[in-house]
Amino acid sequence: MGEVARRSISSPSNARVKHLVSLRKPRDRMAAGVVLVDGHAELRLAVAAGSQPLSVYVCAQLIRDKSQLELLEQLGEVEVVELSRAAFDKASLRESPDGWLAVVPTPERPLDRIQLSRRPLVLVCESVEKPGNLGAMVRTAEAAGVDCVVAASPATDWGNPNVVRASKGTVFAVPVASAPSGDVARWLHSHRFHAVVADPAANVLVTDADLTQRPLAVVVGSEHAGIHTSWAAEGASSVRLPLLGRVNSLNVSVAAGVVLYEALRQRPPVGSPRNQSKN
Amino acid sequence: MGEVARRSISSPSNARVKHLVSLRKPRDRMAAGVVLVDGHAELRLAVAAGSQPLSVYVCAQLIRDKSQLELLEQLGEVEVVELSRAAFDKASLRESPDGWLAVVPTPERPLDRIQLSRRPLVLVCESVEKPGNLGAMVRTAEAAGVDCVVAASPATDWGNPNVVRASKGTVFAVPVASAPSGDVARWLHSHRFHAVVADPAANVLVTDADLTQRPLAVVVGSEHAGIHTSWAAEGASSVRLPLLGRVNSLNVSVAAGVVLYEALRQRPPVGSPRNQSKN
Repeated sequence: MGEVARRSISSPSNARVKHLVSLRKPRDRMAAGVVLVDGHAELRLAVAAGSQPLSVYVCAQLIRDKSQLELLEQLGEVEVVELSRAAFDKASLRESPDGWLAVVPTPERPLDRIQLSRRPLVLVCESVEKPGNLGAMVRTAEAAGVDCVVAASPATDWGNPNVVRASKGTVFAVPVASAPSGDVARWLHSHRFHAVVADPAANVLVTDADLTQRPLAVVVGSEHAGIHTSWAAEGASSVRLPLLGRVNSLNVSVAAGVVLYEALRQRPPVGSPRNQSKN
Repeated sequence: MGEVARRSISSPSNARVKHLVSLRKPRDRMAAGVVLVDGHAELRLAVAAGSQPLSVYVCAQLIRDKSQLELLEQLGEVEVVELSRAAFDKASLRESPDGWLAVVPTPERPLDRIQLSRRPLVLVCESVEKPGNLGAMVRTAEAAGVDCVVAASPATDWGNPNVVRASKGTVFAVPVASAPSGDVARWLHSHRFHAVVADPAANVLVTDADLTQRPLAVVVGSEHAGIHTSWAAEGASSVRLPLLGRVNSLNVSVAAGVVLYEALRQRPPVGSPRNQSKN
């Protein structure tokens, strides 16, 4: 274990630094199939979740807590490049970079390469474009033990650095996919999912709905754009949360959390719910 | 009904414009007992919730949708001031101001001026400092029909424009208060609240806890700072949400939403849950 090579780059106009900057463009990043992970905490979580960085860039001058360097020992064979402060500042996306930057394979995979458990639970987000909301939903969905999170139309850039940040790195710990809504509907159908759509206009309260049916897909939409697809035509049922005040919708990541945890309540994980790991 | 006066200010160095700018300082704002509401959507929600602006500033050049002007007719007697583009840009906090700015009485009130319903449900947020999280929690709590949202230590500035924004204006629709944790604990005790603290280290799952006890206080803490106060010493019980993945906490506003909605499930609103207004 341990890094394979250590090289240094001092010039901000070095080709490698330019390459890192080019990866800010979604198109370039997607073509390369990689994600930039900017920050020690995010990288640590990605590595803990089994992600293997392709390259790690560090700036000793920026790393205040030297115990962070232990992370390098947890990596397999990886190229470690030391950047000067000027080079790092150019490469990093953060306003206050902390001296850690890594190029990691994209967590996104095609729908047909997602392996489902025996009793799958998945979260489908339609038309959710705010990276903060997408990342927060992945974080909640990972905690709720879902099999995967699927972004339905429009195409979502799971490698968006703000998604990675808001997900607290969990975007590397739970399979994520992105596909047009029609493809998602066909995929759900082919795996015999029962889809439950969170919709403020629904008649049935989520707590009155039967969420024990398996496999179960929880579908949420953007609070602004709502749900585009006629999931009803796909055999989905709609549920609502009680809205007792003046607002007519919840934040989409809060709504997703409430529905996912109601599903967990109705269909506790294998074994007794009291056996759940307490971490 | 309708506005009382309409005056115009063109100079950005006008004293009124300077006054608006001074209200960005929390101390000045708190001393004046007011909040700046920046944007038509937020102001509309505040007014719909019964808030009565002290002054409304508009910039015709910035208001693209003239139907927004109907809002002025919904106001009681209020001073309406027309600002030039330059003056408005100086007064507004937003990067892309939409031509609406209002000075509104602060929504915050002292704990002892909060009127509780017969079966109160309240949300207590301890050590939550991110305005986005605080606002999101008010939005969810308002939808869940709580009696009030209380920020326990440190003192929270409910007039922070980012709180107002994230709350979607609901900070004006649900009573909010801020007090040191000790005062909050005493207030809960004096009203015979049963406090339930969301704590990842708790032994009891929230769905196994008895949340039917009334009055009920749901207590959440910052994901970073956690819960400082020994609520246990105050007779509170702790509950946890299942965390089945690698993350050891949820976003605090998601956790608050799941616990509040589990409380609603266990203690449906007066009448049948099926009678809940569907809006």
